[in-house]
Amino acid sequence: MSKAVLFSDITIVSPHDNAPVSVIEHGYCSVADKKILYAGTSEEAAVSALKELKDEDYFVYTGKNKILCPAFANAHAHTPMSIFRNIADDRALQDWLFGQIIPREDKMIPDDFYYGNLLTIAEMVESGTACAANMYDGALLIAKGAVESGFRVQQTSMGKKCIDGKWSIDKDSVEELNDFIRKEGNGLISHSLLVHSIYLYPEYFYQPLSDLAKEYGIPVSVHVSETITENENCRKSYGCSPVEKLDSVGLLTDTTVAAHCVHLSEEDRKILASRKVWVAHNPSSNMKLASGFADMVNMQKDGVRLCIGTDGAASNNNQDMYMEMRLASFMAKGNTLDPTVLKAEDVFTMATRNGYLACGFDQCGIIEKGMTADLQVIDYDCPQMWPLGNPISALVYSCGPKCVESVMIDGQFVLYKHELKTIDLEKVKAETKKTMERLK
Amino acid sequence: MSKAVLFSDITIVSPHDNAPVSVIEHGYCSVADKKILYAGTSEEAAVSALKELKDEDYFVYTGKNKILCPAFANAHAHTPMSIFRNIADDRALQDWLFGQIIPREDKMIPDDFYYGNLLTIAEMVESGTACAANMYDGALLIAKGAVESGFRVQQTSMGKKCIDGKWSIDKDSVEELNDFIRKEGNGLISHSLLVHSIYLYPEYFYQPLSDLAKEYGIPVSVHVSETITENENCRKSYGCSPVEKLDSVGLLTDTTVAAHCVHLSEEDRKILASRKVWVAHNPSSNMKLASGFADMVNMQKDGVRLCIGTDGAASNNNQDMYMEMRLASFMAKGNTLDPTVLKAEDVFTMATRNGYLACGFDQCGIIEKGMTADLQVIDYDCPQMWPLGNPISALVYSCGPKCVESVMIDGQFVLYKHELKTIDLEKVKAETKKTMERLK
Repeated sequence: MSKAVLFSDITIVSPHDNAPVSVIEHGYCSVADKKILYAGTSEEAAVSALKELKDEDYFVYTGKNKILCPAFANAHAHTPMSIFRNIADDRALQDWLFGQIIPREDKMIPDDFYYGNLLTIAEMVESGTACAANMYDGALLIAKGAVESGFRVQQTSMGKKCIDGKWSIDKDSVEELNDFIRKEGNGLISHSLLVHSIYLYPEYFYQPLSDLAKEYGIPVSVHVSETITENENCRKSYGCSPVEKLDSVGLLTDTTVAAHCVHLSEEDRKILASRKVWVAHNPSSNMKLASGFADMVNMQKDGVRLCIGTDGAASNNNQDMYMEMRLASFMAKGNTLDPTVLKAEDVFTMATRNGYLACGFDQCGIIEKGMTADLQVIDYDCPQMWPLGNPISALVYSCGPKCVESVMIDGQFVLYKHELKTIDLEKVKAETKKTMERLK
Repeated sequence: MSKAVLFSDITIVSPHDNAPVSVIEHGYCSVADKKILYAGTSEEAAVSALKELKDEDYFVYTGKNKILCPAFANAHAHTPMSIFRNIADDRALQDWLFGQIIPREDKMIPDDFYYGNLLTIAEMVESGTACAANMYDGALLIAKGAVESGFRVQQTSMGKKCIDGKWSIDKDSVEELNDFIRKEGNGLISHSLLVHSIYLYPEYFYQPLSDLAKEYGIPVSVHVSETITENENCRKSYGCSPVEKLDSVGLLTDTTVAAHCVHLSEEDRKILASRKVWVAHNPSSNMKLASGFADMVNMQKDGVRLCIGTDGAASNNNQDMYMEMRLASFMAKGNTLDPTVLKAEDVFTMATRNGYLACGFDQCGIIEKGMTADLQVIDYDCPQMWPLGNPISALVYSCGPKCVESVMIDGQFVLYKHELKTIDLEKVKAETKKTMERLK
């Protein structure tokens, strides 16, 4: 059991299911044994909740000029890709993906997955993120690094393998990751099946992968309608949109995370809404790779469930959910010429509660009694955040990694007063620098 | 004379006039008496340049895992507006401007201008900016605060006054600021004439203000074609675009800074290019207020001179030029569906060298012998910037305020190893908090 904490006289900002984002000024929040025991305005009640725990010792985290809010859940990332940071920018998508990224990925060794993932976790934690969906190979290495770091990950398993140049469905990869999660996951790892995209996977995989996900009861992670070309090619091959094709084989369910969804028809949006798919919006990546502007406003109107991701560090360059919240709102406003759409509270909920739900951690992302303690402390005692004004606006429109003071995951401080507590950063930096030099 | 400095074994990234952005690895740069004495790969030459200065003592700034580049020049800001931070977001433009901002501005007292400006300077310095164009009233208060802080400002004078409900041209405001600049400006203040916009100023002011600018030889700062409504109203009133109207009275010259320029015709772009006007692009503000996407790519093609601004903290919420560089590039890519446009080096030059030129400081923004030392040191020894990859990409796409270690303005460290050296931040915070509470 990690030491219990009383956050004292702090501004508490939290989303809620079926209620607006709440702001509690001069709030108190007690945490013990991974759980939130109390959150509200009564110091007495917060202390009582701690004292009910026999022999519980706690320390006080002073909250003056600080905000306590849920840490972020990044719903679409490729964590090892920080090893490709800033080496292939300002290029056309084909050149970027097939000329720069994939040839380097082909040369990756296990250490690259392991240390690249840890570097990204360090960056994510420093910018207020406690949980990431990782869509990438190297499942056991990623999951191992996450558990060691005390970080939460929804990890994909591959579901297919190549033997003697022939691809086949691979239950072993699913069972291996399930086994790791059961024995060593420590409650920090959830599981999803990688179905990369319509454009990278041949049709004969769709139905077997869909069946595999159902057999094991695991969610599916998939890139959907990222580019116009993807849609056009899908229509040529199958006479329908990627959403329609995925739906036809049962790959769209209420646990599916569909990344990007930049180019959707009204019919596509209706399908995504009716299947309760989670759409992971990737604002920076969609702009930088010139994919386009996802129609978040109509998705929201149609009841599509929305969350936010950074995408990998090769297509975004940093993994800052503050940037993505801000951009999600700004893109929607700029693209619709309506400054009232996708308000601060909307994107804040997308980046916190919704992200956790999409990643399969339904006990996180809300500061309420009984919820798991994945929290961040923001210091607003700085020019960038001063004077505070509306705390929700401040978090979404003014804040950034510089203001992230502490991050607690599963009740443990992984970042405490700007210091990483669980990652050997010097080692990680040395190893990832070697990787970048090898893959230059 | 401030103490001389030798930046040692550091990565030097600099724009140049008529040459690409250069990267010098393991570079040396010596600075004394406000000027850059040497920048290159020879430690010996850097030291020699310092020793040629009689009795010159210098200290060594160790550059391991650090980048030295020009500080930013923010070409469009309203510095006192940090007092309105995060209090009126997600609103329609009319409601925001006329319902929220202007009524509060009407209640401002001199302290609000003075401390609001200092708060913004503190934020700008912490995020790598050494110079800002300030388009706002309170010229002498702003200029005084800037000189006290060692910060560089292009300050507007009003050029008009209201007596007994009647407006007239006001040479006194121009002469007052000129006088301050001559006697107390310390080389840090430049002057421009405020011509707010076509939509806020009546026609009878245009020609007299244009004549006033010419008489005193000062540049003009003006908002241009920020919204579709502005263009439509201008066309109704004058039968032409705002650019055409401003040009017809001689308000567009090679020192004019035209902010926003979101909705331009091809003819407008040609006029701006031929007059050598500086266009200050405001990516965050244009998206957040739903003004639209400025066509930077065609402006660049047509030879319009481009720089970048944050706009005020009420319409952007932070004053981070890293955010604006990144967004400028991403908006252009997303809007044209071409990921190769407005490359990292283009926006880096816009935010540094071009910004200084637009603000009237032609000796800043390049790291070359003889240039004035407005510099920033970036620490890339952190997960967000690691491994470095291409340093120009890293600065534009990965960097942020957290990585800004030091800022030197006019040869003086205003930020040194994350500590503000010239601003009493506690006093500024206390005063601006009072202001926000008074104007709530």
